Amino acid sequence: MTVEGRPSLPPATRTVFFVSDGTGITAETFGHAVLSQFEMRFRQIRIPFIDTLDKARDAARRINEVYHADNQQRPIVFSTLVKHDLSGVIRAANGMHMDLFQTFVAPLEMELGVKSTHTIGRIHNIVDSEEYKNRIEAINFSLAHDDGQSHKNLADADVILVGVSRSGKTPTSLYLAMQYGIKAANYPLIPDDFERGKLPSSLPQFKHKLFGLTITPERLAEIRNERRAGSKYASIENCRYEVNEAEVMMKREGIRWLSSTTKSIEEIATTILQEIKPDRREY
Amino acid sequence: MTVEGRPSLPPATRTVFFVSDGTGITAETFGHAVLSQFEMRFRQIRIPFIDTLDKARDAARRINEVYHADNQQRPIVFSTLVKHDLSGVIRAANGMHMDLFQTFVAPLEMELGVKSTHTIGRIHNIVDSEEYKNRIEAINFSLAHDDGQSHKNLADADVILVGVSRSGKTPTSLYLAMQYGIKAANYPLIPDDFERGKLPSSLPQFKHKLFGLTITPERLAEIRNERRAGSKYASIENCRYEVNEAEVMMKREGIRWLSSTTKSIEEIATTILQEIKPDRREY
Repeated sequence: MTVEGRPSLPPATRTVFFVSDGTGITAETFGHAVLSQFEMRFRQIRIPFIDTLDKARDAARRINEVYHADNQQRPIVFSTLVKHDLSGVIRAANGMHMDLFQTFVAPLEMELGVKSTHTIGRIHNIVDSEEYKNRIEAINFSLAHDDGQSHKNLADADVILVGVSRSGKTPTSLYLAMQYGIKAANYPLIPDDFERGKLPSSLPQFKHKLFGLTITPERLAEIRNERRAGSKYASIENCRYEVNEAEVMMKREGIRWLSSTTKSIEEIATTILQEIKPDRREY
Repeated sequence: MTVEGRPSLPPATRTVFFVSDGTGITAETFGHAVLSQFEMRFRQIRIPFIDTLDKARDAARRINEVYHADNQQRPIVFSTLVKHDLSGVIRAANGMHMDLFQTFVAPLEMELGVKSTHTIGRIHNIVDSEEYKNRIEAINFSLAHDDGQSHKNLADADVILVGVSRSGKTPTSLYLAMQYGIKAANYPLIPDDFERGKLPSSLPQFKHKLFGLTITPERLAEIRNERRAGSKYASIENCRYEVNEAEVMMKREGIRWLSSTTKSIEEIATTILQEIKPDRREY
């Protein structure tokens, strides 16, 4: 697929709609996963918050317009609409319909022996739930404990990421907080620590929840040069030194780690969760 | 559903597996959306990175164990496995299978007239893509421009959120960056601004990309009291004053805004995207 627009692909020939009674994030996440299996470009249009018949009719009209504009090629329509009447209006439009709820909810009703609630917006409209509050609290925690800013309340952290500057700790911490409600602090390992040959002094007592990120010196130099071109900080020699020292230290201290070089923050976060197994979740 | 564990629900009676050859985030996002339609508790188990036959056999074994432990009640299995052989191993286990790729990829192949690539990990293993780089850059931008920390490069922002302290600007900015690669700065409106009766001086030139968040004084006082209990800052009188002044200012300056009081960051972010329509995306 093509969100990123690989230059080798031909121009977009199909339009994809994501239609939802809520934010459309579920439809989009799922649609991207399916479309990523095709070496094609797609033009993407999101239509969120379709929670009345009038809005559904408007959305159907837009789908039909694209059908005609695209020379009678049916747009692909990923939808998450819990109400039958809204879903019916959309499915009457000229599209190829991937109706996620209609496909899966009915068989689940059979299996579970209960009726679904058909309630709109139960996923992302949960500001009063414990889970949502935990996520917001985790985001605030991770921000306050970014880059070793604060030693306070490190005991409350679910995980403390360590690694050299620009090894990926900050985006990973924020992702863990935002997606999973994990309180992720992060702490840089800096040349001072390597000279002293010791972890920063506030960390050893929390060794069971330390997790290391490393990175190849070449990739690190590339990233650092984007910020401070030509500096000693970004030089390949210095990057080699820091990465080597950090890895020696993590090995000696028995800290689990992974390399972020070719991994996305989603992959890093998932791997950390598998390793750390925070108490309140089952894995 | 139950992630949040509503106390009125009975104990979990069914187990749900999320099985994936990648992070499992798609399977989980989708599964949560479907399960949220049922007033039941579910015990959840994620099994990511199932990319070999041996791992698939292990996962199938875990599903079968749960089937027996749950008194022959089939666990619900949401899976995103692009390889037929891995998917086949999982589907042979005693579960109710919601196989997302097998359900939707084949009809899409017919519709598009091309074969899918059956390539594992195309969604979240994209660290070299432009889109991924944009997301990381946006996260760094949003962090550097949190809470009015920097006036530098505000011209590069896609959106600048304004509002009183603790109205939800920071988590919304980070979500916009992380989910959509949107460079979202945020800027507090503080009593100094209200006394001067003017927007902070670096903002008026960017009026087209300002977006306001407001909140009810009652909810604001609640949130502020969690951080600084009993302070003037958190008092209901002060919250009423600040919220009123901020709304008057936003009205006078013609700044679009919404109330974050009952909205999740996902809903706020989606609404902002609809309003702001950043150039490089189609909505």
